[in-house]
Amino acid sequence: MDQSASGFLKEAIRLAVENVESGNGGPFGAVVVKDGKIIARGMNQVTHTNDPTAHAEIIAIREACAVLNSFQLTGCEIYSSCEPCPMCLGAIYWARPDKLYYAGSKEDAASMHFDDQFIYEEMALPVEQRKLFTRQMMREEAGEAFQKWSKSPLKKEY
Amino acid sequence: MDQSASGFLKEAIRLAVENVESGNGGPFGAVVVKDGKIIARGMNQVTHTNDPTAHAEIIAIREACAVLNSFQLTGCEIYSSCEPCPMCLGAIYWARPDKLYYAGSKEDAASMHFDDQFIYEEMALPVEQRKLFTRQMMREEAGEAFQKWSKSPLKKEY
Repeated sequence: MDQSASGFLKEAIRLAVENVESGNGGPFGAVVVKDGKIIARGMNQVTHTNDPTAHAEIIAIREACAVLNSFQLTGCEIYSSCEPCPMCLGAIYWARPDKLYYAGSKEDAASMHFDDQFIYEEMALPVEQRKLFTRQMMREEAGEAFQKWSKSPLKKEY
Repeated sequence: MDQSASGFLKEAIRLAVENVESGNGGPFGAVVVKDGKIIARGMNQVTHTNDPTAHAEIIAIREACAVLNSFQLTGCEIYSSCEPCPMCLGAIYWARPDKLYYAGSKEDAASMHFDDQFIYEEMALPVEQRKLFTRQMMREEAGEAFQKWSKSPLKKEY
């Protein structure tokens, strides 16, 4: 077992426990590490802040990016007390850290009635078979934004 | 074609175009609608704010929740200029709006070198086959947070 990784995961789990004890949100914590040091921490704050995106990993990523003054977490590792939900996993891919470690699994989250597993299943379905009413319209009209983007001198890729 | 839906999608596309022209971010816009009125708007602000989670839908969802003082978008519709990436689609599921409409597709985004399609593919793979180094450890230790959550008198489900 990787000693330093287990120490950082322990901290993510400690944050998850603390968050339940304080009543601020769900049982989830995360930390971002760079050069062997924790540069950002996150705890689930959905109900406390009325923000459905305020999951532990999202908060930790946003804080780490603020610390680094960058929209990329190059050279960083993310440690989460639980397997990231699709939203958080997507955020992790966009942030592009070097490594991801997690402790609990999405089945553990599902056993506590969190929607992680349901959302993974929905995403794997064709749009028209999902429980969430979803409709695509006006694809051609949307092309204007992409065409302008492809030619824009102001474009900053991410 | 649903006339009101096409009007709201047009606004989402207009925001996407405006965002490219201002140089603030990627070619993506979104609006949240309740009772036939736009209550929140979002444009991609990733590079402008150094926040990899600042996609149009995330920004619009956070703003709509602030307006409604709720972590749920019950009775709302989300309109996005492009098919949501996994992060944003996850956020939409957590916010639980009634309907989702989008214009461009993830293939359109991929043709502009955005990672949406790549992230969808990664998510569909077993963890150990992904390009992002991902490791699960200490699943049992993580159980403490879930056990405390299941018994917590302060618990607020979401």
